[in-house]
Amino acid sequence: MTEAAVTAAILVIGDEILSGRTKDKNIGTIADYCTAIGIDLKEVRIVPDEAHRIVAAVNALRDAYTYLFTTGGIGPTHDDITADCVAAAFGVTIDVDPRARAMLLERHKPEDLNEARLRMARIPAGADLIANPVSKAPGFRIGNVFVMAGVPSIMQAMLDNIGPTLATGAKILSETIEAGNMPEGTYAGGLAGIAKAHGAVSIGSYPSMTPNGFANRIVVRGRDAEAIAHARADIVTLLDGLRDGTPG
Amino acid sequence: MTEAAVTAAILVIGDEILSGRTKDKNIGTIADYCTAIGIDLKEVRIVPDEAHRIVAAVNALRDAYTYLFTTGGIGPTHDDITADCVAAAFGVTIDVDPRARAMLLERHKPEDLNEARLRMARIPAGADLIANPVSKAPGFRIGNVFVMAGVPSIMQAMLDNIGPTLATGAKILSETIEAGNMPEGTYAGGLAGIAKAHGAVSIGSYPSMTPNGFANRIVVRGRDAEAIAHARADIVTLLDGLRDGTPG
Repeated sequence: MTEAAVTAAILVIGDEILSGRTKDKNIGTIADYCTAIGIDLKEVRIVPDEAHRIVAAVNALRDAYTYLFTTGGIGPTHDDITADCVAAAFGVTIDVDPRARAMLLERHKPEDLNEARLRMARIPAGADLIANPVSKAPGFRIGNVFVMAGVPSIMQAMLDNIGPTLATGAKILSETIEAGNMPEGTYAGGLAGIAKAHGAVSIGSYPSMTPNGFANRIVVRGRDAEAIAHARADIVTLLDGLRDGTPG
Repeated sequence: MTEAAVTAAILVIGDEILSGRTKDKNIGTIADYCTAIGIDLKEVRIVPDEAHRIVAAVNALRDAYTYLFTTGGIGPTHDDITADCVAAAFGVTIDVDPRARAMLLERHKPEDLNEARLRMARIPAGADLIANPVSKAPGFRIGNVFVMAGVPSIMQAMLDNIGPTLATGAKILSETIEAGNMPEGTYAGGLAGIAKAHGAVSIGSYPSMTPNGFANRIVVRGRDAEAIAHARADIVTLLDGLRDGTPG
């Protein structure tokens, strides 16, 4: 933890996620991506297609974290208001960007570039574009905010494009110890002591249900491989002792 | 929209979601549930296992919406701090609750009810319990906040228990019109006009990618079946006209 931590938040924009009609897949994808490159994802918010809520969330999250990633609301229809809201959050103007218009012309004939499609070329002043290899309509970066599409395959492509531009922290490492069907309540006391003794790592216990009952996992996370290995060894010793001696 | 809207937020608590290790399933489940019973889900937040963040989010969301549903962080291990944080958010004490202790004794022998397991019986003062038919450790309700487990099968069972106690609005109805591979940019202009003319409903356009390109859907949502039918008819007429007359 010697390097300054690089943090991030995600803002998912869209009524369709809140209604349940669409099940979000982007949060998990971005979370995995952040973890892989050493960025601490610290918060996620999902808000509806309402301008004041989007603006407030953009400003709260861009102020609080190194990066903010948004998904959704950058298509051509009337409910796609993300770009305008991000411009409002930054207090900058927004207009059709010639670079974005040129990207759209790679996919659409000039006569098909109607007013609705040109909405997708509206980019806040001062933003850099994020290329969209799937359907051309770009995302953009302004300040520490990355505005991406909601369609998962396009979001993934945009994420791959911005990845190399991100400052990253030391890679976050983790070790998983399978506790199996040993109840959390059996090892929780010992684990709390280990967590206290190993302040350089974070230790979590994650139950899940299987047809045969609980299947529990303990995860040690941190940026120092040696510290993780020490904590892991203590946890393995704890579980072995409980398996031998103390019925759950 | 004559009845007062009943609104809700979800607060997902857990490092494991933010690290990507666990992919959340509860948001979609609660979103579907709210939609089915006429509650408007307006916001979701995901926060890590850090007390000040949990407390701040609980207070922000319980003040802003009719209901707040939380998931995660109510197990027996040291990283399960939701109950303490909710007590702090409400400014009430928290201690082992005899009713919750009795529930745990339905599953555990008295000699196995160690300090860690008794953490699961710690309930903020003044809260009502939410029964957990799967593994007994209860959730709880305090004020307008419902605190539930993170394990999806347990969360679902708790949601089924609290459902009948919730105030509900008029059921939210929706109609989906398949636009198929007609590009959003082709119908976006006409759709914006229809959205403007039908203020009693909300109209969204949702693209998704298939191996054959975009598959677009238009969804009309609202609480007035007649208003939805009128908007739907206009949208069908729009799409039919574009299919006949104007190539995409």
